[in-house]
Amino acid sequence: MPEPALTIASLLRQPGLAEACQRWLRGGRHQLRVPEPEDDPLEALDRHREDFDAVLLEENAFPSGVYQELRERGLLLPAVVIGEVSGRIEYHDAEVHLPPDQLEQLSYSLDAAVSRFLRRGLLGAGNLPPGSSGTPPDRWRLANRLRERLGYLGVYYKRDPSRFLRNLPEKERQQLLHSLSRTYRDLLLSYFRDPAAANQALESYVNTAFFSDLPITKTVEIHMNLIDGFWKQLKLEGHKNDFLQDYRLALLDVMAHLCEMYRRSLPADAPLPLAGQLAAVHPPEVR
Amino acid sequence: MPEPALTIASLLRQPGLAEACQRWLRGGRHQLRVPEPEDDPLEALDRHREDFDAVLLEENAFPSGVYQELRERGLLLPAVVIGEVSGRIEYHDAEVHLPPDQLEQLSYSLDAAVSRFLRRGLLGAGNLPPGSSGTPPDRWRLANRLRERLGYLGVYYKRDPSRFLRNLPEKERQQLLHSLSRTYRDLLLSYFRDPAAANQALESYVNTAFFSDLPITKTVEIHMNLIDGFWKQLKLEGHKNDFLQDYRLALLDVMAHLCEMYRRSLPADAPLPLAGQLAAVHPPEVR
Repeated sequence: MPEPALTIASLLRQPGLAEACQRWLRGGRHQLRVPEPEDDPLEALDRHREDFDAVLLEENAFPSGVYQELRERGLLLPAVVIGEVSGRIEYHDAEVHLPPDQLEQLSYSLDAAVSRFLRRGLLGAGNLPPGSSGTPPDRWRLANRLRERLGYLGVYYKRDPSRFLRNLPEKERQQLLHSLSRTYRDLLLSYFRDPAAANQALESYVNTAFFSDLPITKTVEIHMNLIDGFWKQLKLEGHKNDFLQDYRLALLDVMAHLCEMYRRSLPADAPLPLAGQLAAVHPPEVR
Repeated sequence: MPEPALTIASLLRQPGLAEACQRWLRGGRHQLRVPEPEDDPLEALDRHREDFDAVLLEENAFPSGVYQELRERGLLLPAVVIGEVSGRIEYHDAEVHLPPDQLEQLSYSLDAAVSRFLRRGLLGAGNLPPGSSGTPPDRWRLANRLRERLGYLGVYYKRDPSRFLRNLPEKERQQLLHSLSRTYRDLLLSYFRDPAAANQALESYVNTAFFSDLPITKTVEIHMNLIDGFWKQLKLEGHKNDFLQDYRLALLDVMAHLCEMYRRSLPADAPLPLAGQLAAVHPPEVR
């Protein structure tokens, strides 16, 4: 078992949910911990500022004032929010949402949350609300720690090959594909009627596809299977189904996002750092 | 001016074409040379086996027996074929086709040809027709030379940032975008009626998009502009135009190919070399 590389503050309220998350992260590089005092997230995170790399939240578990207070104290951490993908932002705009029936993807979502957090430059003071008291050195410390633990090269995320689809045991492989298909279904169902929700489902799908190194053809396959299912159902019910081809736009959207994510992950301008320069790059250039 | 990193055997027959290619490669890392004797490509390539990294060909310039003889002698080199994208293969299945009115993309096509050549494993004996006399060591020498000159990291292609769209002078940027749009137009026009030709146009587009680090949104923009133009023209002429949305399939196809190309270029399994190990690894490890 590899040394846990990321310590996650679990601020989940439902005991069942906390246990399920624990189960899906078992054996991986993420370790869940419940900070004390359990009943006061502000105090808990403030007291353990140095101990946590990311935070696991539950939708609607806290009044929104709590998040505002966290932001104001400079307590910004990469975050995964378990809940319906509604498009609503709980904590900050680099958070990643994951529905409770898709926890198979939790470890990918955590990686995505860290990656987005660093990319969005939440560590820079510019993005903080006025009056934030987290000093820049505080935030840089977190960035450095994350990079050290995760093997960042500049801002390029090092994916964990042991969690690539092709390297998973057969049963987990099927579970992950099934879960991806559910996320993609959420995306299709909300695509034309709720753009904000669709967007969160899309991001969730793209994150997992990226971090599991999903072959592109698998995405096309998932799309075709779902559309095929819709088509049969509509036909059975005697409805028109020619509008279904509009859903190609959703597939295009997924492809474009995924492609851009890969594109940005490929080292470009910067020549590979030479030995010895790696540690000296601080802060890393954003490509 | 950088040292030319690739020496290209020019087997072009039309003097005008040879000059145009020369012009588009000026100042870059590709150097065109005409091997002697000029009239016998077999002799020319055989005699200068060690001098050339790739070859520039013209469609229909030689009888097909010449290519067969080249293959049989083990004279396989990365190749760009200037000519209409018809889907026909002249020399070998890793060759890259480029129409003569899209020479703006020539340097990208040459890089793509090298990349494809190495990826397709043409260097392995398995892919050669029986009776080929190029011994494996011969072919490995070429592979190693290509890697050394081009800064390959494993089989992952190191793109040349000086030719990224955003780093080109404004005029060249416009020329490249214009040329990409022409290639994409070729793709659309042949998409439903000539799959082989469409495929070559698609590959040409995807290669240039990859090597010029084209933002994904630019591809969507090129697609929309062309479809918009078709739509207006059909409307003016009083034709139906609702079939145009079928062309989304072409865009999907491009995205999927491009995405897969990026995906495969992203170092995957190998762990990051630690500082201090990087320089010692030779040939360099895949990041």
